[in-house]
Amino acid sequence: MSITPAVNRRILLAAHPQGLPRPADFRLDTQPVPTPAEGQVLLRTLYLSLDPYMRNLMDEIGPGYAPPIPLGAPVVGGTVNRVVASRHSRFQEGALVLGNAGWQDYALSDGSDLTPLGEMAQPSLALGGLGMPGFTAYVGLLDIGQPRPGETVVVGAATGAVGAVVGQLARLKGARAVGIASGPDKCRYAVETLGFDACLDRHNPHWAEDLAAACPDGIDVYFESVGGEVLDAVLPLLNSGARIPLCGFIAHYNERTTAGPDRLPRLLATLLPKRVRLQGFVVFDHYAERFEAFRRDMTTWVQAGDLTLREDMVHGLEAAPEAFIGLLQGRNFGKLVVRVAGD
Amino acid sequence: MSITPAVNRRILLAAHPQGLPRPADFRLDTQPVPTPAEGQVLLRTLYLSLDPYMRNLMDEIGPGYAPPIPLGAPVVGGTVNRVVASRHSRFQEGALVLGNAGWQDYALSDGSDLTPLGEMAQPSLALGGLGMPGFTAYVGLLDIGQPRPGETVVVGAATGAVGAVVGQLARLKGARAVGIASGPDKCRYAVETLGFDACLDRHNPHWAEDLAAACPDGIDVYFESVGGEVLDAVLPLLNSGARIPLCGFIAHYNERTTAGPDRLPRLLATLLPKRVRLQGFVVFDHYAERFEAFRRDMTTWVQAGDLTLREDMVHGLEAAPEAFIGLLQGRNFGKLVVRVAGD
Repeated sequence: MSITPAVNRRILLAAHPQGLPRPADFRLDTQPVPTPAEGQVLLRTLYLSLDPYMRNLMDEIGPGYAPPIPLGAPVVGGTVNRVVASRHSRFQEGALVLGNAGWQDYALSDGSDLTPLGEMAQPSLALGGLGMPGFTAYVGLLDIGQPRPGETVVVGAATGAVGAVVGQLARLKGARAVGIASGPDKCRYAVETLGFDACLDRHNPHWAEDLAAACPDGIDVYFESVGGEVLDAVLPLLNSGARIPLCGFIAHYNERTTAGPDRLPRLLATLLPKRVRLQGFVVFDHYAERFEAFRRDMTTWVQAGDLTLREDMVHGLEAAPEAFIGLLQGRNFGKLVVRVAGD
Repeated sequence: MSITPAVNRRILLAAHPQGLPRPADFRLDTQPVPTPAEGQVLLRTLYLSLDPYMRNLMDEIGPGYAPPIPLGAPVVGGTVNRVVASRHSRFQEGALVLGNAGWQDYALSDGSDLTPLGEMAQPSLALGGLGMPGFTAYVGLLDIGQPRPGETVVVGAATGAVGAVVGQLARLKGARAVGIASGPDKCRYAVETLGFDACLDRHNPHWAEDLAAACPDGIDVYFESVGGEVLDAVLPLLNSGARIPLCGFIAHYNERTTAGPDRLPRLLATLLPKRVRLQGFVVFDHYAERFEAFRRDMTTWVQAGDLTLREDMVHGLEAAPEAFIGLLQGRNFGKLVVRVAGD
């Protein structure tokens, strides 16, 4: 570990993506490593989280819950960092912290956005199942979806960072878990390793019919992070009184068109007679009240072997753009993390 | 009042309407007045309620919360009836009851769907503000919308059977009430008589901009009964944490097309970052738990002059089809009721 590094590599947003991002929308840049002022720490990024929400921050107009990334600025992102220099009384040099350093090797922080991680055997999990994506699953499923024993929970992207936790939490609460994923390997993993009751392969042209067959008692909770044709297939299967926690709609993030048909009337014509509750939520709202319970519960379940967390680790900061583009196409298998530096 | 009437006029569903119903979709028919069997009563219809939901029951496939009307059967509808012959121990001849006789002069009932009305000065109100539409407003606004003092409540069809009560209840709860209605007369009435803080005229091409100006602090509760361009105008004005009780979407009831643009992605992209709760409900679910409180509260408010109920009364059963078609076009002004027979 060097405290006098040569350069800070940064991946900047070079252009607002039109639809699916292309590599040219990003630019690698090098800068001198910054020097912390009084009250600051210098962070070295060990792991960088790649998450679908970042796509929304790349548009010229932001999504509303976080500001858009300015052109020429580093792409934002949650990170696991080592404090490599400190002029801050609360953070010692060498401490491991959860931060928001973004797509770069080094960053400064005044400490206000840092969470000490202590010593973790696998600190990258703080970006996945034990961090924001796992917490999204926990709050969305348990607090908003509220599955009851014997009910059926459906989640898209069943092996992704959020979906895998949703399915496993549903099972832990006594509900049936039905997933949707891309390809037979992910589906097999969802059933055999994660314990889903069924998982439908979206590459199978009959997947929507298979979903109906896999939900003979209908759907009570649909954890919505996909939108598009998954939502289309779910709507006719919803039971009266169903709940839809809405944390994302990745199928629409790259859309540049709003070509018809208009799917809104069908949505309303489903939600009304079926008394469905569709509830948008942003996980950042819930940290103060629920994060402690989440970390305690999740740690217990992971240590007891009741919950499996899979990572899809790519290596090197320069791999981030391609990996992120793949994430938006469902090419990752598990929580996507970039290993930026050795610990 | 005759107890040996000659004929029972019935208005039957002659065809499933294609889009907006036409007079030819209905057929007037006469039958002998039926004779009650043991355990039945014969009902004379005094007042017939016309409500938008009936349009949904005229399609070949029903909306899910109630069965579709078979071709050749009388159109369904809530009614105020006089019991003109009784072979039922609980109902005396001459009693005034709330029933579901539908679009006809007479009907039989086994009493299970009848509610005694006692003596009411204005029994038709049991079809409007003191009945199902008023109860829809009460449950939807108070239990689902939950307006807090100082918040802004928006409702379409502000002078209609439901909307007028929504606006007045919002004011009674200390919220601002902003309505949307068709034409300057209705808008003036909404503000001057019902006490709305503002009412926008949808015939004004600038109404959506005016809505934004009338909601300087955004919208906290949107009582959804319209859909279409009203929903479009409301979405960008919703505040974080807004609630949308969904009781109807009259703008889409007559749609035969789902031409684009696709408005679903924009809906999701609004509900998520704004943490909006969109909740479908069907008023029939809530009678057991809430109707008694509703009748007590509403009667108190009406008697105290805190709440005004306006009826749009048309005369004669044969006027029902045209009046109903006008209802779907927003031509009524107040709760639409057909006076079928003198009391």
